[in-house]
Amino acid sequence: LVEAHLARHLKCKYSVRSHDIPDQADLVVVLGGDGTLISVARLVGDRQVPILGVNLGSLGFLTEITLGEMYPALECCLLGDYEVSERMMLRASILRDDKEIEVHQVLNDVVINKGAMARIVDMETVVDDRYLTTFKADGLIISTPTGSTGYSLSANGPIIHPELDCLVITPICPHTLTNRPIVVASDARISITMQSQNEDIFLTLDGQVGVKLKYGDTIRIRRAEHRTKLVRSRSKDYFEVLRTKLKWGER
Amino acid sequence: LVEAHLARHLKCKYSVRSHDIPDQADLVVVLGGDGTLISVARLVGDRQVPILGVNLGSLGFLTEITLGEMYPALECCLLGDYEVSERMMLRASILRDDKEIEVHQVLNDVVINKGAMARIVDMETVVDDRYLTTFKADGLIISTPTGSTGYSLSANGPIIHPELDCLVITPICPHTLTNRPIVVASDARISITMQSQNEDIFLTLDGQVGVKLKYGDTIRIRRAEHRTKLVRSRSKDYFEVLRTKLKWGER
Amino acid sequence: LVEAHLARHLKCKYSVRSHDIPDQADLVVVLGGDGTLISVARLVGDRQVPILGVNLGSLGFLTEITLGEMYPALECCLLGDYEVSERMMLRASILRDDKEIEVHQVLNDVVINKGAMARIVDMETVVDDRYLTTFKADGLIISTPTGSTGYSLSANGPIIHPELDCLVITPICPHTLTNRPIVVASDARISITMQSQNEDIFLTLDGQVGVKLKYGDTIRIRRAEHRTKLVRSRSKDYFEVLRTKLKWGER
Amino acid sequence: LVEAHLARHLKCKYSVRSHDIPDQADLVVVLGGDGTLISVARLVGDRQVPILGVNLGSLGFLTEITLGEMYPALECCLLGDYEVSERMMLRASILRDDKEIEVHQVLNDVVINKGAMARIVDMETVVDDRYLTTFKADGLIISTPTGSTGYSLSANGPIIHPELDCLVITPICPHTLTNRPIVVASDARISITMQSQNEDIFLTLDGQVGVKLKYGDTIRIRRAEHRTKLVRSRSKDYFEVLRTKLKWGER
Repeated sequence: LVEAHLARHLKCKYSVRSHDIPDQADLVVVLGGDGTLISVARLVGDRQVPILGVNLGSLGFLTEITLGEMYPALECCLLGDYEVSERMMLRASILRDDKEIEVHQVLNDVVINKGAMARIVDMETVVDDRYLTTFKADGLIISTPTGSTGYSLSANGPIIHPELDCLVITPICPHTLTNRPIVVASDARISITMQSQNEDIFLTLDGQVGVKLKYGDTIRIRRAEHRTKLVRSRSKDYFEVLRTKLKWGER
Repeated sequence: LVEAHLARHLKCKYSVRSHDIPDQADLVVVLGGDGTLISVARLVGDRQVPILGVNLGSLGFLTEITLGEMYPALECCLLGDYEVSERMMLRASILRDDKEIEVHQVLNDVVINKGAMARIVDMETVVDDRYLTTFKADGLIISTPTGSTGYSLSANGPIIHPELDCLVITPICPHTLTNRPIVVASDARISITMQSQNEDIFLTLDGQVGVKLKYGDTIRIRRAEHRTKLVRSRSKDYFEVLRTKLKWGER
Repeated sequence: LVEAHLARHLKCKYSVRSHDIPDQADLVVVLGGDGTLISVARLVGDRQVPILGVNLGSLGFLTEITLGEMYPALECCLLGDYEVSERMMLRASILRDDKEIEVHQVLNDVVINKGAMARIVDMETVVDDRYLTTFKADGLIISTPTGSTGYSLSANGPIIHPELDCLVITPICPHTLTNRPIVVASDARISITMQSQNEDIFLTLDGQVGVKLKYGDTIRIRRAEHRTKLVRSRSKDYFEVLRTKLKWGER
Repeated sequence: LVEAHLARHLKCKYSVRSHDIPDQADLVVVLGGDGTLISVARLVGDRQVPILGVNLGSLGFLTEITLGEMYPALECCLLGDYEVSERMMLRASILRDDKEIEVHQVLNDVVINKGAMARIVDMETVVDDRYLTTFKADGLIISTPTGSTGYSLSANGPIIHPELDCLVITPICPHTLTNRPIVVASDARISITMQSQNEDIFLTLDGQVGVKLKYGDTIRIRRAEHRTKLVRSRSKDYFEVLRTKLKWGER
């Protein structure tokens, strides 16, 4: 099965529309970077099809197989001889005037972010019906372990082993200097209510989908029911990817 | 002299438009918070009139005199018996197609910031005609010592004694984890060129004035020629304000 | 039952030696700070006796009940009407010349720390038989979620909800600036081998017990078999303690 | 002139003891790393002899000339055709029972550090006779701009351009999370008094000389009268060294 857009490039006769692929496939091969794989994970959704990520450029956290390793990896997959890394995903919904107006699933992170001009966003945060705090910050990142090496890391979040089940709440440039990233259980229900009149705040899902937020909107975040299945590389483990990407050779 | 808008509130007969005050006054009294004082500093500009900041709410870094201390402080001022804290300011200009399209003076900081949806901004940074690096980040703060306890501090910048002369370059959520705040000499000429096609990047001056930036725009920043003169509190020194505002009592 | 040392102070006739208390008691009441409670947790060890922590001074993370709340709390305990917060502990052992020379259980953290004079310690770190990295740092903290608000927090570690099961590896002043705290699964087996000839390195257990380390020593850390049971306060939840201790009122 | 120890290695007939070199030389050539250069800077002291640092291994912040560039660099030096980078140094003294018991000059940093077993050191800090705060931390670093890329950077200190004149006070793992690095003027007189009974605290000078501190000892730090003169590389500027050492290529 070849995706329609790609098929045209390859002058391939038979093609399938991208959102029909997961239903018909037993394995999805993604050629590209981490961003491409993340968008495919959203497409695959709850269909439980494993994804093989092949990086075309530099090594990715999710696309750890190189082009050279692709054919041997594919052969193993066809023989059923492969391991899968299961990654938890998040379900985020927006409540406005007591109605759920949007629902999304993400593999990496849910981000509340202010526009360039506004300075501080007030976000009342409740975890499992208990008040945590009202973050005053540029924004807030709710990340999965998989997403912990993405935006959350730039905002001083910890690295979380991707096969662990938990969530991390990382404030972006918090006004209160003692606000630190907080790791909570994977079954936590996080609820964030916008307390700023500020009309220039957005919710971003996996850095790809954006929704404008209003005063009083509540974002609800919990673990999604299904997981993304990634075919593991034979030659590299997670720590090796970490060492390479974060340049842990020497200072 | 009473500012026109305030005069109406006070039912005061004689009033002066805010931008005419600095020319006629020997001392400007600001009642409000740090934000109000900063906007007045911009208004006062190069007229060298000292400013007495009185906080109406909580203690500010710039408005360290309380309402109760105001009259004794004013009396000292009238007798000429006061000390002034001189604060360096920045001059920031935007170059587009080789033309200087905007020039501003700021007391706190010049901030390049991306919009909520965009993720990374590429900013080629040159100091004194020498290439420093191309920051890949959410944004970049160029702060005076006075501004170091503002936005820069939330972005992990150092605290700089306000009477020191230097600039600090603080990246916001840098993608390169080894990018750290950099302190340079006060006579440094900083030049930042936008390398992102991203059309949602803004320059913010003292958190109050905003200008949309385009690909290829260059921001030039150097010390302004004049300084802001703040009347010093008798009862509090800078470190006391620091301890109170940052709650250095105990953890 | 009253502990012998305390009994003398109280002129109490019947007393029990501190390490005999856990065997005979159904509930241990600790009057003091977090440090005292931690040392009692070590004493209680695997006997599964719940501990009621009463703070005599300021609010603690582990001693959240005040003196005033003690009697009502005790009455509830006697009626069996109380909730327990179960906290994972760590088992740390030292291997020297292939022999296990020391074994300890801790509630908070296992810390490798250099002496004041030495500058960098090289610690080869392996997680579940996979090489992670060789940390070059002042030291390394392996913390439980309970310990995450202790030393690890000062070294930039994340806050971890204390009822979550996981471990955090936090380097102290790492030479490699991209080394960040790493959260791993609670069943991870961590193995750290001293690669420095430096003869001034110590292992500290819960900040209370210290062992001098030698070149080639390996520290093995994994979850302990038993947990510490803390009687929960009725009036305060964890987030409230967090807000109070970290002063999340406002900046 | 060849230093005695090196002379033996080179089977060189004429040699001079290391501490006599500065008096007789017009230029000191240091072959080694940054550590070697720092110890030579202490030796040169106030004799104003320029130092040419040649790195034998990897690029250093202070030894930016490679072995291959050494001869052309030396030729330029002999012709008087070279530029010098002047670096401020610190003078640190220890006061015990009102007597100055030790005085040292350093190029990089003065560090107060606790031993491995002790947890928190209380350090009452006064700047220009004004109380700053009592740091409760693992230790405290007072660094020159030259030293800002050393230990201070690992403890989250800012990078300071080495030709700027100022001091940075960087707490090591502070217990108070809002304690941040503070940059003060180069003419600031810093005074730190040990408030801990803890008998395992040391003062370390440039990471090379150590002195045991006692309760009540006061460390006084101010700019030294003389500066270290380093011969500048022709081919590399400071920012290039920064980019290379901190790997600012890409994440």
